[in-house]
Amino acid sequence: MNRILNIAVIGCGRIGRIHAENLATRILGARLAAVADIAGAAAKEVAAEFHVAKAVADYHELLADSAIEAVAICSSTDTHSRIIQEAAAAGKHIFCEKPIDYDLARIHASLSAVDKAGVKLQIGFNRRFDPSFAKVRELVVAGAIGQPHVVRITSRDPEPPSLEYIKVSGGMFLDMTIHDFDMVRFLSGSEAEEVYTIGDALIDPAIRQAGDVDTAIVTMRLKSGALATIDNSFKADYGYDQRIEVFGSKGSASAGNRTPDEHLLMDAAGLHHAKPLYFFLERYAEAYVLEMRAFVEAVLKNQTPSVTGREGLQAVVMGLAATRSLHERRPVKLSEIV
Amino acid sequence: MNRILNIAVIGCGRIGRIHAENLATRILGARLAAVADIAGAAAKEVAAEFHVAKAVADYHELLADSAIEAVAICSSTDTHSRIIQEAAAAGKHIFCEKPIDYDLARIHASLSAVDKAGVKLQIGFNRRFDPSFAKVRELVVAGAIGQPHVVRITSRDPEPPSLEYIKVSGGMFLDMTIHDFDMVRFLSGSEAEEVYTIGDALIDPAIRQAGDVDTAIVTMRLKSGALATIDNSFKADYGYDQRIEVFGSKGSASAGNRTPDEHLLMDAAGLHHAKPLYFFLERYAEAYVLEMRAFVEAVLKNQTPSVTGREGLQAVVMGLAATRSLHERRPVKLSEIV
Amino acid sequence: MNRILNIAVIGCGRIGRIHAENLATRILGARLAAVADIAGAAAKEVAAEFHVAKAVADYHELLADSAIEAVAICSSTDTHSRIIQEAAAAGKHIFCEKPIDYDLARIHASLSAVDKAGVKLQIGFNRRFDPSFAKVRELVVAGAIGQPHVVRITSRDPEPPSLEYIKVSGGMFLDMTIHDFDMVRFLSGSEAEEVYTIGDALIDPAIRQAGDVDTAIVTMRLKSGALATIDNSFKADYGYDQRIEVFGSKGSASAGNRTPDEHLLMDAAGLHHAKPLYFFLERYAEAYVLEMRAFVEAVLKNQTPSVTGREGLQAVVMGLAATRSLHERRPVKLSEIV
Amino acid sequence: MNRILNIAVIGCGRIGRIHAENLATRILGARLAAVADIAGAAAKEVAAEFHVAKAVADYHELLADSAIEAVAICSSTDTHSRIIQEAAAAGKHIFCEKPIDYDLARIHASLSAVDKAGVKLQIGFNRRFDPSFAKVRELVVAGAIGQPHVVRITSRDPEPPSLEYIKVSGGMFLDMTIHDFDMVRFLSGSEAEEVYTIGDALIDPAIRQAGDVDTAIVTMRLKSGALATIDNSFKADYGYDQRIEVFGSKGSASAGNRTPDEHLLMDAAGLHHAKPLYFFLERYAEAYVLEMRAFVEAVLKNQTPSVTGREGLQAVVMGLAATRSLHERRPVKLSEIV
Repeated sequence: MNRILNIAVIGCGRIGRIHAENLATRILGARLAAVADIAGAAAKEVAAEFHVAKAVADYHELLADSAIEAVAICSSTDTHSRIIQEAAAAGKHIFCEKPIDYDLARIHASLSAVDKAGVKLQIGFNRRFDPSFAKVRELVVAGAIGQPHVVRITSRDPEPPSLEYIKVSGGMFLDMTIHDFDMVRFLSGSEAEEVYTIGDALIDPAIRQAGDVDTAIVTMRLKSGALATIDNSFKADYGYDQRIEVFGSKGSASAGNRTPDEHLLMDAAGLHHAKPLYFFLERYAEAYVLEMRAFVEAVLKNQTPSVTGREGLQAVVMGLAATRSLHERRPVKLSEIV
Repeated sequence: MNRILNIAVIGCGRIGRIHAENLATRILGARLAAVADIAGAAAKEVAAEFHVAKAVADYHELLADSAIEAVAICSSTDTHSRIIQEAAAAGKHIFCEKPIDYDLARIHASLSAVDKAGVKLQIGFNRRFDPSFAKVRELVVAGAIGQPHVVRITSRDPEPPSLEYIKVSGGMFLDMTIHDFDMVRFLSGSEAEEVYTIGDALIDPAIRQAGDVDTAIVTMRLKSGALATIDNSFKADYGYDQRIEVFGSKGSASAGNRTPDEHLLMDAAGLHHAKPLYFFLERYAEAYVLEMRAFVEAVLKNQTPSVTGREGLQAVVMGLAATRSLHERRPVKLSEIV
Repeated sequence: MNRILNIAVIGCGRIGRIHAENLATRILGARLAAVADIAGAAAKEVAAEFHVAKAVADYHELLADSAIEAVAICSSTDTHSRIIQEAAAAGKHIFCEKPIDYDLARIHASLSAVDKAGVKLQIGFNRRFDPSFAKVRELVVAGAIGQPHVVRITSRDPEPPSLEYIKVSGGMFLDMTIHDFDMVRFLSGSEAEEVYTIGDALIDPAIRQAGDVDTAIVTMRLKSGALATIDNSFKADYGYDQRIEVFGSKGSASAGNRTPDEHLLMDAAGLHHAKPLYFFLERYAEAYVLEMRAFVEAVLKNQTPSVTGREGLQAVVMGLAATRSLHERRPVKLSEIV
Repeated sequence: MNRILNIAVIGCGRIGRIHAENLATRILGARLAAVADIAGAAAKEVAAEFHVAKAVADYHELLADSAIEAVAICSSTDTHSRIIQEAAAAGKHIFCEKPIDYDLARIHASLSAVDKAGVKLQIGFNRRFDPSFAKVRELVVAGAIGQPHVVRITSRDPEPPSLEYIKVSGGMFLDMTIHDFDMVRFLSGSEAEEVYTIGDALIDPAIRQAGDVDTAIVTMRLKSGALATIDNSFKADYGYDQRIEVFGSKGSASAGNRTPDEHLLMDAAGLHHAKPLYFFLERYAEAYVLEMRAFVEAVLKNQTPSVTGREGLQAVVMGLAATRSLHERRPVKLSEIV
């Protein structure tokens, strides 16, 4: 039995195109059956490029199509909750980009709808599927570093988002750090207890005026007793900087950046290597394929996806606590966030 | 104008499948129109996997099909010359796996047939397209290391080929080192003048009985005045080891191995990294895509492929000289090989 | 004029022996004129080993010796303030191991005595002289990374101190992190504004019972606007782990560990490197020589030492703030510490 | 019993000063009792710097001094054989810089004199004591890489010697490669069987006119069956490049360069590290101390030094074979050298 899953992509922006291409060409267990985008032309363009039979402007057409078994929600964040609930009601399995929503009530409503419908839901925490990060997690789980004591994450973008985006993004902690919050949970195997945040707009004062910070350090006490620290920046001149470390009673497991090539130039000025892969599309290209394969496999095998709605919820709670800590300049317990 | 090139793959073994998958899924300018394999079932299987319309046992059917514009020859080496000549006569553009042949007369006949037909011919020296090796070449060409003085290559397989294969492979220098010979030319921008070889069967005496060596060092004087050294082994316990260096008057450009991930484990026993990617399929996965894209682009744009038949010829001449040097235990000039 | 500075070492424990050996053998501008230790036998032993003419139990004899121009105070921390004041009164130049004292009033009294006497005082923040850390500072000062935004320090010991030592050490932040506090100031060129600390005894509950923590994360807002994070542990199974990074508007400068050798073993299990140098005596061996050379040179050339009493004071203030933050579970401003 | 060895240094040039300083300050089991240099002023200067009681122009005075038990011969190569024989006759133990001589008859005469006198002789193959190279050897001996199959050495100087020096140096293979020849023996545990050499003056034609080459590749068959390759250059723009690898049936052990610091700068142009330590004085500083400690210990404990006269002889034989191979453009067996 080599069943093929018919899946549709909703939202054909940057991340939607990635998933469309992967589904069309690199995931043999799936068939990209349709694409949707409120800009119908964008949907048509992607459909043409990847030989997809159906392209629509209104995703409701896809939810009504009984041949489509699953959807990948790649539209803007403010539409996620609504589409999740509609898709669940239509009996579609759901892959949804992060974050589910910035509003806890809407998240809870979405998760309830999924539970009630009995469909699968996987959240797009792609970094869990990055081979380097997955290897670190594997080492931690295998006991190679003993009991985790400290989790350290450095996560820096190569350039800030546009001010327009910043104004609607929910802020650095819900938009960018949310990946790192999920990574802390993934690596430590523990929930957070309390969060403390410092941050400022050191790169561009306009970001402060837009209500956000561009540089931040988050520290956390975890329920396991372990401690965590994350440092974020919107702009690393040398490119996307994504490093993690778990330090424990028997050692340390860490992962650094990946480069486009492994060259070394030695000259009178020094020794020179390649910069990290430019941004998330390059760095996590393989992770995007692997996460979608995992989703397709979970649906086909009727298994719980490895990144459930609850993972999506917890990371948002951490982001809300971090945001409050920044504003109130004090440590904030996760139990304060409801 | 976004013309699509109709291409067929001849030979559905390990390397043929790679090219078939890449053509089917990762090269938007090409359409995998057909596959052929003397074992018809193998052709059918590949066709089913990659949604290919036509699968045949006799590649002559493909040469007779006017809809097919190009072929990728991935059959056994002894068939290359014949198929090149037939494909050229049929007006097909040709991508051919290395080596063209072990016999210089047949190579010359093939190149003449290609010239006469005016079709494109690209030889499968995939390593030229490896991002790390290509970057080193780019640095050399840009003058970053000044005038090249020394080229050093380490090339080790993770495990020896089967004895059956060794008996028909043409020997280590024509089967394995041929890639390194091409790399010396690619990196130095110079032809070789003279070759000296030492080698032995240190891994397995059965390889000696089969007429081959499993460990060798080749040194060369190049026409430019530069010197080169290659060391080969059929078996590195830690996996596929592919390293190059060009040292020149102003510095050194080198490239090391690529690993499946970037983890680092630090424990009481030491610091531990990942091993290199296992073998050529993993290490050169990206190079296989890039070389085929280059071929498709050369055909579509009516340009000379970057790796011509002459490159294929020269590497074979170097392999023959190295083989003679091993047997006669003396330096052999390339001009002795005719 | 190649004047030689006559210097005496007070306190012949582990660190005193290091300075004695360096002064005796590796600093041509100095002569180790005498050593003192309350255990007279320890003084005699060091004197014999390094061919020193004078060994006493009571350091007052050295302060009374007009031939001795400078002293290196390597005795226990509780004696530092008193000896500094006595030595200053005796007109001796002073090198003093960190910390000056745990009590701010005594530190102020010491610095006043030094000022009044007009002698030189250098504090033993040896890490500033580590070639790797000094290089990072040099890059920051040269503007290579633009404006500093984030300072990150990982500082882990290979094994906890004895419980006896922990009870009198002043706690992790005054005994161990004090080096990292100084490093934050050194690297950022800024004073700290506010400190927040989380920590626990994750390695050994007995350390908690002794009133200390063994694992901690400190975050800081600096007056420059930059942010800093330090993570500490008393026990890294793989040895002494000392890493720093300054990230800024134009890039990042960092320094990793130094190993006893540069070997790489590749085998079926992976790739293996050497562990870091075991502990501070090994890692900072060169720094100890360089700091003492700098002190001797400052005295001989009548220049202000590069690490003054004020540096010693500020690091203690940071340590006190961090300790208070840990106990009160809130961010603490340095201005609260008086 | 803590006996101190009275030792004298003969020849106060660059390398003599190194040994003098080490003996005076870093080797507790030895006392630098005297120094000699045909330029008496040079001897006096070194004596003053390191507090040495006796400085002479004529080393015969030292050989006649019964208080002196051992000599370190650091004079020019053409004087080595004579001084060895005279020192042996005077009953002094001998540390002698490499090479013993360029003339095999004189080497044999020297070794015979040493044997007859029953004194110790250690040759200055300092690289055997480099911690990285010693670690590789240790791994090989421990069986970590199985049976050695290939030895690879890259050895490049940061700048050519003066033409005056080149004219009397004995040529690259006897002056520079001799260290690498010794390293091949040290790492492989095998003698060489046959040598083949290619080389040219690619850096400076004046070197060719002076009768030497500045760039060379040497390959060797060893008696054990293993193969070896060495590549040499007189001028690496990025500094002293000293790398070794032993590849065997179970893996590979290698060692790279050592840098003055461990910094990493990441900026818009790439990732940048420190260059290797500049030249042999810096790279092998620790090795010079360790080799002299080993000599002193061997004498004090009446043991055979780890680097005997025979090691010195064999490396010269390899250098002579390599030189002949270069001139005669053919592989040369060591048995041809008598």
